[in-house]
Amino acid sequence: MRRAIAILGAGNGGQAFAAYFKFHGHQVRLYDAFSETVDAINKKGFIELTGALNEKIEFHDASVDMARVIDGAEVIIVINPSTHHRKIAAKLAKCLKPNQLIFINPGATFGSFAMKRALADYGYTDDVVIAESNVLLFACRMREIGTVFIGAKKDRILVSAFPAIHLDKIKGLITDIIPEAQFVSSVIATAIDNTNPTVHPLPAILNVGWIESGEQFSFMQKAVSPTLGRYMELMDRERIAVGEKLGLARNVELFDLYQQYEAEYGVYGKQTLCDVFRACDAYTHIYAPTDLYTARYITEDVGMGLVPLVDVGRQIGVDVSKSKLIVDVCEAVLGLDLTHGEHCRNAESLGLAGMSAEQIIRYAQTGER
Amino acid sequence: MRRAIAILGAGNGGQAFAAYFKFHGHQVRLYDAFSETVDAINKKGFIELTGALNEKIEFHDASVDMARVIDGAEVIIVINPSTHHRKIAAKLAKCLKPNQLIFINPGATFGSFAMKRALADYGYTDDVVIAESNVLLFACRMREIGTVFIGAKKDRILVSAFPAIHLDKIKGLITDIIPEAQFVSSVIATAIDNTNPTVHPLPAILNVGWIESGEQFSFMQKAVSPTLGRYMELMDRERIAVGEKLGLARNVELFDLYQQYEAEYGVYGKQTLCDVFRACDAYTHIYAPTDLYTARYITEDVGMGLVPLVDVGRQIGVDVSKSKLIVDVCEAVLGLDLTHGEHCRNAESLGLAGMSAEQIIRYAQTGER
Repeated sequence: MRRAIAILGAGNGGQAFAAYFKFHGHQVRLYDAFSETVDAINKKGFIELTGALNEKIEFHDASVDMARVIDGAEVIIVINPSTHHRKIAAKLAKCLKPNQLIFINPGATFGSFAMKRALADYGYTDDVVIAESNVLLFACRMREIGTVFIGAKKDRILVSAFPAIHLDKIKGLITDIIPEAQFVSSVIATAIDNTNPTVHPLPAILNVGWIESGEQFSFMQKAVSPTLGRYMELMDRERIAVGEKLGLARNVELFDLYQQYEAEYGVYGKQTLCDVFRACDAYTHIYAPTDLYTARYITEDVGMGLVPLVDVGRQIGVDVSKSKLIVDVCEAVLGLDLTHGEHCRNAESLGLAGMSAEQIIRYAQTGER
Repeated sequence: MRRAIAILGAGNGGQAFAAYFKFHGHQVRLYDAFSETVDAINKKGFIELTGALNEKIEFHDASVDMARVIDGAEVIIVINPSTHHRKIAAKLAKCLKPNQLIFINPGATFGSFAMKRALADYGYTDDVVIAESNVLLFACRMREIGTVFIGAKKDRILVSAFPAIHLDKIKGLITDIIPEAQFVSSVIATAIDNTNPTVHPLPAILNVGWIESGEQFSFMQKAVSPTLGRYMELMDRERIAVGEKLGLARNVELFDLYQQYEAEYGVYGKQTLCDVFRACDAYTHIYAPTDLYTARYITEDVGMGLVPLVDVGRQIGVDVSKSKLIVDVCEAVLGLDLTHGEHCRNAESLGLAGMSAEQIIRYAQTGER
């Protein structure tokens, strides 16, 4: 069924999806905060997808006016680094209608909770239903504005709804635009499924000299040494423990890193995470960042990922000390505040402060505290 | 004046000093716990010094019998990694005489306190005077048993006595064997002057993946990146603060890393520690370790250096949180216990538990609590 879609964010993913959805017959408008980007797309008049998809799609519906972009849209897709979600919410709060579905793609760690709380902070108090995915459907990189290279399209992505009791109502809409969606019980499942916070910050901060040497090296394949692989496994057990405490069933909606790398990349039978990453061909040409102060491995994966995992984990009585230590090291060594303010998520900014595991589970289900 | 010297430890330094002292006319005996080493030296019949010194000295006075080695010695020089000091003390406690001077060379962090406490733990309760140096007089490496390469001999080393009130009594003896000795007010000065704990563990543990990659790289020149140089400076300020709280005067007996690298290596006018190390030619051919589990940068410089600095620092009310974090990271990431047991020094094993800064200063002076 043809759907009316608003996409918020005209980066790699936003442009790719704008073209992709339009190609599949949907009505699409695209918002971005930067008029340079918006003007360039409209002037070009098309978006070209290369790589795994090869299409040139007429497109000139980009705008810096969020109210105009979302007007009449059935679904509003937020495709942004999670560090930008609050800024999006601030504008969205002024023009959102109660019948519109927000779809955060991907949600990162507890993205729907953060969006709900941010909308309220900025004055939107009506009911809202938020969907979120665990990952982006595409692995993609923008070559230039209006030209996006699609490395791969995933076979499936997980999608949840908040409150989860409304999932059935939105399934049809989501399936119409992303048939690959596999629905899970709640946003807790999509949030805990985000393994970037477990996988990225550790080898980044514990190789800071190597990274700042400017040497080019395959990041995950080289930097995750035997020692770091062992430590990452300890961090992963903490992630799993948080998921279990929040009601997810092991091997049903909660998978450890070995299982994820089997499913995602076909890496089987490895005894250590070091061996897993070394065997993962997809990582061969993904090089280390050269500056940790701007790298999303820190700015996004710690502040918006590891920090909420640790903060919520501690609140519900899970030992997350191994992960906490990595947060502390990132903050101290880089001299960054990653646990307070706009650029992080914690129990407070997620609207979860003081809640028990049971209360969080119920909140995810019903939206009621 | 010709002196009777017992050297405990037949490694690089022990062999070099045995030959060096004998060459200068002293009577020297050499102890080691390993009969293979002792037998090889005696069988060879000489110790050859190469490099900065070039001498072949007849020597066959090595033994595994500590009592026989120290019998009649005026000074007993302990030349061992500080991780071995307790083992040495256990044997020494059984045969030491009150008129014999123990000279720990170098003492590492609070080595004399540790030795005094260990001797007492092993039953030696008579008075004892202990001298300690801040560093070894020689930069040296053993090529094979009986052949030691001397990279350089330092112009001066700092020497203190514990209790400090006995310093004048031992000055003549120390000067006779090491004319380069420059005497300082107490073992607090030599202990805090040991910068290895500030300099080594940080770039080691925060480049663990690089180190385990097996790649050969100049350790201090490469691994101390701009970010790590900044953090090292924060750690150095904590070391300085501990020294000040323990009564050392800035720029008299207490020098920061910039000043130390000016004095030791002639590196002037640098604005960052990263630049200091990059400009330090002495480091060009000192390569990174390939295994942190056995590297003295961790096993010795954390457990015997950073841990006592942190533990004593906290006890006397100094903020040592930046250093403490690095101890925590080493322990957690490597899965090692570096803060308890035989292979570390803490306020308890130093005999300083519960003491205020003033009490420690007085103890260093008088030996009385």
